[in-house]
Amino acid sequence: MAKNAANDRIEAVYWIETAYPLADAAAIMAGEQSTGTFVRVPGETDELRELYAAGVERIVELGTVDAPSLSGSGLPKGHAGPVVRRTAEVTLSWPLANMGASLPNLLATVAGNLFELKPFSGLKLLDVTLPPAFLQAYQGPQFGVQGTRRLTRVTGRPVIGTILKPSVGMTPEQTAAQARMLAEAGVDFIKDDELQADGPHCPFEKRMAAVLRELNAYADRTGKRPMYAANITGEIDQMLRRHDAVVAAGGTCIMVSLNSVGLPAMTALRRHAQVAIHGHRNGWGMFSRSHATGMSFIAYQKLWRLAGIDHVHVNGLRNKFCEPDDSVIASARECLTPMFPAPYKGCEIMPVFSSGQSAKQIPDTYKALGSMDLIYACGGGILAHPSGPAAGVRSLQQAWEAAAAGVSLAEYATVHAELRSALEAFSA
Amino acid sequence: MAKNAANDRIEAVYWIETAYPLADAAAIMAGEQSTGTFVRVPGETDELRELYAAGVERIVELGTVDAPSLSGSGLPKGHAGPVVRRTAEVTLSWPLANMGASLPNLLATVAGNLFELKPFSGLKLLDVTLPPAFLQAYQGPQFGVQGTRRLTRVTGRPVIGTILKPSVGMTPEQTAAQARMLAEAGVDFIKDDELQADGPHCPFEKRMAAVLRELNAYADRTGKRPMYAANITGEIDQMLRRHDAVVAAGGTCIMVSLNSVGLPAMTALRRHAQVAIHGHRNGWGMFSRSHATGMSFIAYQKLWRLAGIDHVHVNGLRNKFCEPDDSVIASARECLTPMFPAPYKGCEIMPVFSSGQSAKQIPDTYKALGSMDLIYACGGGILAHPSGPAAGVRSLQQAWEAAAAGVSLAEYATVHAELRSALEAFSA
Repeated sequence: MAKNAANDRIEAVYWIETAYPLADAAAIMAGEQSTGTFVRVPGETDELRELYAAGVERIVELGTVDAPSLSGSGLPKGHAGPVVRRTAEVTLSWPLANMGASLPNLLATVAGNLFELKPFSGLKLLDVTLPPAFLQAYQGPQFGVQGTRRLTRVTGRPVIGTILKPSVGMTPEQTAAQARMLAEAGVDFIKDDELQADGPHCPFEKRMAAVLRELNAYADRTGKRPMYAANITGEIDQMLRRHDAVVAAGGTCIMVSLNSVGLPAMTALRRHAQVAIHGHRNGWGMFSRSHATGMSFIAYQKLWRLAGIDHVHVNGLRNKFCEPDDSVIASARECLTPMFPAPYKGCEIMPVFSSGQSAKQIPDTYKALGSMDLIYACGGGILAHPSGPAAGVRSLQQAWEAAAAGVSLAEYATVHAELRSALEAFSA
Repeated sequence: MAKNAANDRIEAVYWIETAYPLADAAAIMAGEQSTGTFVRVPGETDELRELYAAGVERIVELGTVDAPSLSGSGLPKGHAGPVVRRTAEVTLSWPLANMGASLPNLLATVAGNLFELKPFSGLKLLDVTLPPAFLQAYQGPQFGVQGTRRLTRVTGRPVIGTILKPSVGMTPEQTAAQARMLAEAGVDFIKDDELQADGPHCPFEKRMAAVLRELNAYADRTGKRPMYAANITGEIDQMLRRHDAVVAAGGTCIMVSLNSVGLPAMTALRRHAQVAIHGHRNGWGMFSRSHATGMSFIAYQKLWRLAGIDHVHVNGLRNKFCEPDDSVIASARECLTPMFPAPYKGCEIMPVFSSGQSAKQIPDTYKALGSMDLIYACGGGILAHPSGPAAGVRSLQQAWEAAAAGVSLAEYATVHAELRSALEAFSA
């Protein structure tokens, strides 16, 4: 048998922290996630290793730490003398033959037991690069950036969105009334909160039908049809049924809580879907909050893009969560970066900026991202505008016009009253 | 409308670390995950809050920390003077009406955005208590402890298991030959490694059929049928098809990587399943390795038990991973603890001990757990026994006999040669 060609290999990059020599630590990672085990077994022949062992592609030493980031790690056998804990970026590779082009099985290989291995007081998955063979098994985004623009008829600026609030407690009729008010204010995109699902006081079918009735009526009057991301999160049969109900009611989008449903459910949904899939990453903090474990959003979003989402949340600049601005921009930029080289499908999707956003963050967002291909979601930035929601939406459009023209918000505000009020009203 | 009855409420317990006054921090958690938002919106009426707001049930202060466990957190508005970071256990509750009896939507509520909230330099989900209404929507384990004993015909001691190794690289025929050897050695339970899926050199159907052919032949000869947990992890249609192939081939168990497939796929699989479901928690380190984020295994395993797994991995005493022994035992004990009070189904499942296990850890395991209802999986502890695998299995059975009789291993070994060799050979 010939050794697998390089373009059939999977690569993964990790940040590690260890008291082991770096080469030993990397070899332990590679062994544990392929042909090796704690005890050498007779079947692990040289030929088998040659064909199926994971390889250590690169080790880039980064520096030392004074104390272990996570507890429970160990020292090399027989270690004596002072302990030096090094950090490094390690790149491993696997032949595709080990697990096949399967996202669930890929995850068991590139993540899996690695995080718990004794030599590591820190281990985080930073990136994963997949061979194009995965595009034969997965469809990727159906709508992505261009499809979302086509469905919302928004060109030359971001899609401006908002979230129905309060998150829970409204009746279907109250929700629909709010959606109508937001449509009339001029928003391009409206979404359910991720806490709003299918509770008995606001059942999915009734809420979705009531909201879309209002939006359809608005579209009939004006020719503008805001996209409504209806939260279909649930069991697989429920999600497929709810998707069909959205299509039947004239909707153009469904929303799914990614971490609640898992990759195979998303893959099944994508195969069935006729509308855009809005990916909500709530629960993401479990993977991201510690620098020393979990995975980066760079790796995470690739899996979901391949499975078929069209949008994903990335927070926003000066957000109300713990995420720093550079991380937000790196995430958003990655959504717009092709996952596979031409001529393969790039699987680009729309990043969704949200959390405490108003007109004020727009110039910095545009400057940092260099693109208008995003959904810009505001709550207070629209609803709390001193002159009302329509002025709130106008202030956001004006801020994006200013950013596109390279004019400061202050200057643009001198001749745009809604923007002027927004700059006075909002602190971020 | 009447306020929801207490037995229709969901409770969740968190460990938090914050520079905010604890009551404020808890109120922020409750608000964010129910009716509140960063900006007070007009629709959040008193009546709506009364019915749907999450409640703060208890706050137990635990102590202070010198430095924030995680970066990115903030201070209360206008804070002056020295910063005191407190830790506490906070219990929140929600009316079931907020999300309905839905595990995916429950997750968005009890986990969701909480981990990223600015006031917290640490926040971990410790436990979740669900109303029995969830038993109308979910089936729980089909086999659990008693069903697994019935299928393996093992009574009076743990089910003794092992993992096919090397993890990847063997052909179906090599895998089957190893399974035959293990069956002949007397093991009760054999599982695929989680890295062994459906690669082109060892396709699932061929491997599973070859292994079960050997195990069926062994059962015909001896009347003893080891349980084989065939790793069916994949897309939903693949998993259902593979399940059916296992049933057709006379198998009694399927294995699934939980974090790879997600809760809805497990729920769908459980509805379809005719054999025991072996839950592999690989990737669990992402949730568990940091004390300051993620979730406890106590909360995690409840979700999967309700969705329908029959077994779950818990590591083992003096394991080769980072997990301390008390955490291992707490996890295993929880698997055997009813999730719902009588007369409701308790949903108990079998904990799977593994990782560097041999006869040596058995007395401490039995003493700490107080139960024989577990799967005890050994690799080296069987294969590396000086007198061969059959002696390895006998040494484990003898160690459990000794533990049950309250006799020390050393004493029992004086008249049991296989145990004596094991004690000499293994270090743990």
